[in-house]
Amino acid sequence: MQALKDKVIQEGFNLGRGILKVDSFINHQVDPSLMDECGKEFAKFFADVKPTRVLTAEISGIAPALMTARHLDIPVVYARKTKPITMPDTVYLTTAPSHTKGVITELIVSPEYLSRGERVLIIDDFLASGATILGLVRLAQAAGAEVVGVGALIEKSFEGGRDKLAFLNVPIHSLVCIERMDETGIHISN
Amino acid sequence: MQALKDKVIQEGFNLGRGILKVDSFINHQVDPSLMDECGKEFAKFFADVKPTRVLTAEISGIAPALMTARHLDIPVVYARKTKPITMPDTVYLTTAPSHTKGVITELIVSPEYLSRGERVLIIDDFLASGATILGLVRLAQAAGAEVVGVGALIEKSFEGGRDKLAFLNVPIHSLVCIERMDETGIHISN
Repeated sequence: MQALKDKVIQEGFNLGRGILKVDSFINHQVDPSLMDECGKEFAKFFADVKPTRVLTAEISGIAPALMTARHLDIPVVYARKTKPITMPDTVYLTTAPSHTKGVITELIVSPEYLSRGERVLIIDDFLASGATILGLVRLAQAAGAEVVGVGALIEKSFEGGRDKLAFLNVPIHSLVCIERMDETGIHISN
Repeated sequence: MQALKDKVIQEGFNLGRGILKVDSFINHQVDPSLMDECGKEFAKFFADVKPTRVLTAEISGIAPALMTARHLDIPVVYARKTKPITMPDTVYLTTAPSHTKGVITELIVSPEYLSRGERVLIIDDFLASGATILGLVRLAQAAGAEVVGVGALIEKSFEGGRDKLAFLNVPIHSLVCIERMDETGIHISN
């Protein structure tokens, strides 16, 4: 998507070791109209697979997932990383390694909001190694729901996440795909 | 706001000890069109104070703050609770006790996105004891920015947060105000 691509080129910052800083429009400060456009684009792309629920992971997935859900007019569920006291005793929990943080995080969803038969569209800010998205896939499967699509604002194709999701046999869509980041810059392939 | 009030009455759950579960539309699953209406209402209410930036705290503040920022057409910044590696070495950091979690949380904002002269509208999901919102006020003040308004989806007036914010002398607006929660139900005053 051109608007997001322009933003990545203008404001994205290559911190090295494959880490892209997008704090000025996604991960700390958010540009709401850009995010709304991204949500609209995802909603259009995934309309055919008829999702009934958007699933994401807190924290940075919330903004794109919410805007996508708004345009699809369906609820969004964000997996929590710590279990709040408002959750029931028994939940779906999986773990996923965070590449950028160097830690294992938990992803937790309450059975109250993810049910058998739901058609789940997973939306996240990044598709990199695929670890977080695979965690969300496991949560959906644990609930007996079907994953019908995966969308990410930014894909780092050099981390190979897309291949790890191929077994799902569902449409995968990233709005900007980075094939390489090095001292010469951020190289976008789409 | 009637739509949110109806939702609190229909789906809010009094867990006791002043804790209101709103996981089905705010804190875990989010109803995007309701959240958009809430954002529109905040944008209308606070238009006169001419905010240049919305400030909130991750995690549950993100959805209402993003929708408010969308309708005001200004950026939103969400204070982080852990410092990501993408942040500069020197940041604004304050601590705030979390009533519902029984822990002290950190609230961190990068000086890159909060500057002297900004007119900051604080939006959060709850106004209860006021501790988180006061933390956001301190961050804004540390940056030399001016807080021009405070909005919350749900106020628990019995926790007294509004009084603690009175010194700011800015408009404070909650969409639903709960004056009492007991075995007879959730008592809404507005």
